[in-house]
Amino acid sequence: MKKSLIALAVLTASGISFAQSSVTLFGVVDLGYTQSKTGAAKTSSMTDSGQASSRIGFRGVEDLGGGLKASFWLEAGTNPDNGTGDATNNNNQSASAVTAPRAGTQGLTFNRRSTVSLEGSFGEVRLGRDYTPQFWNHTFFDPFGTNGSGSNVTGAAYGDARNFTGVRASNSVGYLSPKFSGLQVQLQTYMGEVASPAAKAGNGTALRVTYDAGPLSLAVADSKTTTGAGTDWKATNFAASYNLGVAKVMMMSSTDKITGEADMEGYLVGVTAPLGAGVVKFAMSNIKQGTTVDSDKTAIGYVYSLSKRTALYTTFATTKPMTGDKTTGFDLGVTHSF
Amino acid sequence: MKKSLIALAVLTASGISFAQSSVTLFGVVDLGYTQSKTGAAKTSSMTDSGQASSRIGFRGVEDLGGGLKASFWLEAGTNPDNGTGDATNNNNQSASAVTAPRAGTQGLTFNRRSTVSLEGSFGEVRLGRDYTPQFWNHTFFDPFGTNGSGSNVTGAAYGDARNFTGVRASNSVGYLSPKFSGLQVQLQTYMGEVASPAAKAGNGTALRVTYDAGPLSLAVADSKTTTGAGTDWKATNFAASYNLGVAKVMMMSSTDKITGEADMEGYLVGVTAPLGAGVVKFAMSNIKQGTTVDSDKTAIGYVYSLSKRTALYTTFATTKPMTGDKTTGFDLGVTHSF
Amino acid sequence: MKKSLIALAVLTASGISFAQSSVTLFGVVDLGYTQSKTGAAKTSSMTDSGQASSRIGFRGVEDLGGGLKASFWLEAGTNPDNGTGDATNNNNQSASAVTAPRAGTQGLTFNRRSTVSLEGSFGEVRLGRDYTPQFWNHTFFDPFGTNGSGSNVTGAAYGDARNFTGVRASNSVGYLSPKFSGLQVQLQTYMGEVASPAAKAGNGTALRVTYDAGPLSLAVADSKTTTGAGTDWKATNFAASYNLGVAKVMMMSSTDKITGEADMEGYLVGVTAPLGAGVVKFAMSNIKQGTTVDSDKTAIGYVYSLSKRTALYTTFATTKPMTGDKTTGFDLGVTHSF
Repeated sequence: MKKSLIALAVLTASGISFAQSSVTLFGVVDLGYTQSKTGAAKTSSMTDSGQASSRIGFRGVEDLGGGLKASFWLEAGTNPDNGTGDATNNNNQSASAVTAPRAGTQGLTFNRRSTVSLEGSFGEVRLGRDYTPQFWNHTFFDPFGTNGSGSNVTGAAYGDARNFTGVRASNSVGYLSPKFSGLQVQLQTYMGEVASPAAKAGNGTALRVTYDAGPLSLAVADSKTTTGAGTDWKATNFAASYNLGVAKVMMMSSTDKITGEADMEGYLVGVTAPLGAGVVKFAMSNIKQGTTVDSDKTAIGYVYSLSKRTALYTTFATTKPMTGDKTTGFDLGVTHSF
Repeated sequence: MKKSLIALAVLTASGISFAQSSVTLFGVVDLGYTQSKTGAAKTSSMTDSGQASSRIGFRGVEDLGGGLKASFWLEAGTNPDNGTGDATNNNNQSASAVTAPRAGTQGLTFNRRSTVSLEGSFGEVRLGRDYTPQFWNHTFFDPFGTNGSGSNVTGAAYGDARNFTGVRASNSVGYLSPKFSGLQVQLQTYMGEVASPAAKAGNGTALRVTYDAGPLSLAVADSKTTTGAGTDWKATNFAASYNLGVAKVMMMSSTDKITGEADMEGYLVGVTAPLGAGVVKFAMSNIKQGTTVDSDKTAIGYVYSLSKRTALYTTFATTKPMTGDKTTGFDLGVTHSF
Repeated sequence: MKKSLIALAVLTASGISFAQSSVTLFGVVDLGYTQSKTGAAKTSSMTDSGQASSRIGFRGVEDLGGGLKASFWLEAGTNPDNGTGDATNNNNQSASAVTAPRAGTQGLTFNRRSTVSLEGSFGEVRLGRDYTPQFWNHTFFDPFGTNGSGSNVTGAAYGDARNFTGVRASNSVGYLSPKFSGLQVQLQTYMGEVASPAAKAGNGTALRVTYDAGPLSLAVADSKTTTGAGTDWKATNFAASYNLGVAKVMMMSSTDKITGEADMEGYLVGVTAPLGAGVVKFAMSNIKQGTTVDSDKTAIGYVYSLSKRTALYTTFATTKPMTGDKTTGFDLGVTHSF
C-alpha cells in the first residue's frame, strides 16, 4: 500500500524546506460485487472490503534526536458502498444492550488503530487501541488476509461475537522489541472499560514471537483475555511460511480455549504465486469445536495489479459445514490505496 | 470551488519531486443567519449551508499509464453551526424505525460521496455511494443550486422522505461516457441493502444524457427505483440553459410518477447575471400533485465574491402554497471553500 | 502545539510554487495511565487527555488582499484509548432524553470548534461552534489547563451538566477586536436549536476583556445564558497572571449565579516553573455553593518535554469534599501533537 506523504512544509521567506518529520494521509477504497449461495438462497450485494479493508488514516513520525522517535497513528474503518464508518469497542467485550445505531448513522471512529508510540534502540512502546498479538497470524498467513469471500474459517474463533479482542483491543499498552537475528517479540496488555471492573472483564495479556530468516517466517502467539468473573478466553496459534520463489507456501494452526466450552481448533494451508501482472491465491482452512462444529473452506482467487496502488480481484470460495448445505461465495472488485 | 492540493511529496536525498498522482483535501464551510416567517410564526437560526453545502472531503487520482486512471472520492457532509456530521442511507429507502441518533451525536460519514473509479478513453466506471443521474438537473439548473432559502420547490419530489435515491444512492455502479461532440451519457444502477431484498426495495436504474454546445446546455434524465413489492418511483426531468453573456437563463421541468399517487409535476425558470464583483440570481418554481399540492416559489439573491474561494451572500424568497399563509425566507451568510 | 502545514501546492509545468494560503492538519494524541482512589475504592484506567485534549483538526487561512483574510477551523475531539470521537451539543442545553449512543459507536464530530471567520484591521468576525468567552479564564489560568487529574474544581461550574455553554456554544456569532495597547475585547452571542425556541433556551451573550503588558496578564469575563422560560445562568470570572521569570503565578476567581440556587463561588491559585527540560505545575482550587458544596483541590505535576511536540507528564492531586472521603488522582502519560 503506497502512502501519500503530506510533507511538513516549513515555509520561510528564503525558500521551501522539509523537516525530518512528516504526517501521512493514507487509505484504501475497495469496492466490488459479491454473490453468496447457500442451497437455493442466493444474495447479491456490493461489498466494500473484498480484498483489503477500506479505511482512511493519519499517521506521523517525529524525530526526537538521539535515536528516539515519537509517532502517532489514527485509522478509521470505512464502508464506501454506503458511506458509513465503523463502530469501535471500548470495553473489549460484547456490545452492551443499548440500542444499536440506526442503519446509515454510524460515523467515523478510529476503530482500526489509535495509538501513540515512543521508539528507540530499545524497541517501541505503543499506547492506545491496537491490533492484538493473537490476531496477526490469522491474517498474515492467510493468502486472502482475512478479507472477502476467501477469508479463512479459523475466523470463527477471532470473529466470534464474544471475542472482541480477537482482532483489536482498546486501552492497550504494547511493547515491540527490535529484531535480533530475525527474532522479534511483541507483548501487550489491555484493559476493558466500564463493564464489570471487579470481574476484570475485557482485561488481558498477549505475547507474539516471530522469526524471519530469508525465505522462512515463523510466528507463535499466546493470549488470555478475562471474559467475566472466573471465565476467560485463551487464544494460541502458530504459523509458518516459506517463499520458494515460484510460490509462497504457508500454514497456520490455532487453538481457542474458552471456559465451559470444548476447545476450538483451526488450521489453514495456503499458497500464493506470482502469475502475469498478478498473484494467484489458494487456501484451505478448517475449524472444529467438539462434536458440533466442523467446517471446511476452500478458496481460490486472483489479484491483477494495475499499479502498486490499484488492483482488480476475483475470488471463489466454498464452505462446507458439518451438516446442511454448502455455501459458495464469489467476489469481483477493485482495490485502490492512497 | 478551489481545492487544496496535497502533493504526494516524494522526498529524496537530492531534492523534492512530485509524482503525477495527488491527494486533495477539500471542503466548504458555509454559515449564516436565516429567518423564516409563516403568518405570525417567525423563526431565526444559524444556518450551515445557505449558499453551498458544508463538507470536508478527500479525493485523489492515480495515473496508471496508457491513458488509464484510478481515482477515489470520500466526501462528508458537515454542519458547522453545531459541529455534527450528516447521516448516510444504506438501503436507498426510508430510515428504519430504530431510534434516531440523539441530537448532537451524529458523527461524520462519507454520505455525500464515497467512490472508486477507473477512467480511460472508454469513459469512467464508478462504484460506491454517489449522486443519482435524476438529481443533477434539479440542482445544476437551479440558480440557487438547491441550497438555502432560495432552493427550488421541485425539491418536494427529490427531497420527499420516501425518495431516498432522489439525491444519492448507495451500492451504485455508474458509467459516464466520454463527450462526443458535446454529447455525454451517464448510466447508473444501484441496490438497496438489508430491508426487503425479495421486494428489491431500494434497487433502481437511471440514465442521464447531456448536450453542451457553446452557450447552450441541454440535459434529460430518467430513472426508476423500486420502493417495495410491485411499487416504484419513476423520476423524469428535462432542463436547458443558455448563456447570453449578460445573463444565463435556465429552465427545468420534472415529473415524478409514484405507484398509487397522482403524478408530481414541477418546473423552474431562472436567471443568473454577473453584477459588480458578484452574481444576481432569480428563480421561479412550482410543484403540483393532483388536486392537493400546488406551491409557487419566487427567490432573488446576490452572491458577492471576495475571492474565488470566499463569498458573502443574501437571499430572499417567498413560497405560496395552495392554501394557507405564504412563507418568506431570508438568508445572510458567508461561504468559504478550501 | 506544533502544527503540520499542508501547503497549497500549485503544480505548474515550470516548477513548484506555494500560494499565500494554506490548509493545516493538526492534532494531539495524549494517552496515559490514571489511578483514582476514594476511601477503599480504587480504579485504574487508560486515560486519553491527561495533559492536553486529544483531537484532530483541519484549518486554513486565505489572504483576500487589502488586509482582509478568510479562515476556517474544523476540530474534532478524539479518545484514542478506544478510538471513539466526541459528541457535540446543538442546543446549548442538556442532552435530550433520547437514548444515548451505544458505547463504542460515537463517531467524530467537529465538537471542539467548527467556524468560519473574516479578519481585517477591524478584528475578527467568527461564526459557528466555538469556545465561549466565559470558559477561557477557567483553562488559561489553570496550570493544568483543565485537563487530567489536576484540572481545577472550579470546573464544577463550567462542567455542570446543565451548563452546556460553559465550554463551547453552537450557533454563535463572535467578534474579537484587535489588540489596542495590550487591550482586547471578545464578544459572543449564541442561539440554542430545536428545544424551547419560545423560552429562548440555549440563547446567550458573553463578553471577555483581556489586558497584556509584558509579564502581566489580566482577564475578565461575563456571560448570561437562558436555561428556560424566565431562568438563566450567569457566569462571571476574573483572572490574573504574572511571569516572574523563575516562575509564573496565576489566580482565577469565578461566580456562577443560577436562577433558584445559591451562587457557586470558585477560585484558583497556581504556579508554573521551568525545571530542567520541563515545567513544574502546582495549583490549589476551591468551589463552594451555599451550605452544600465546599471542595478543595491541590495538584502538583511535572511535564518533561522530549521536543516541542512531545512530552511525558505526571500529576498527583487530592480533592477534599465538605464531607466524606478525599479523592486522590494520579496520571502518568505521553502527549504528542502534530
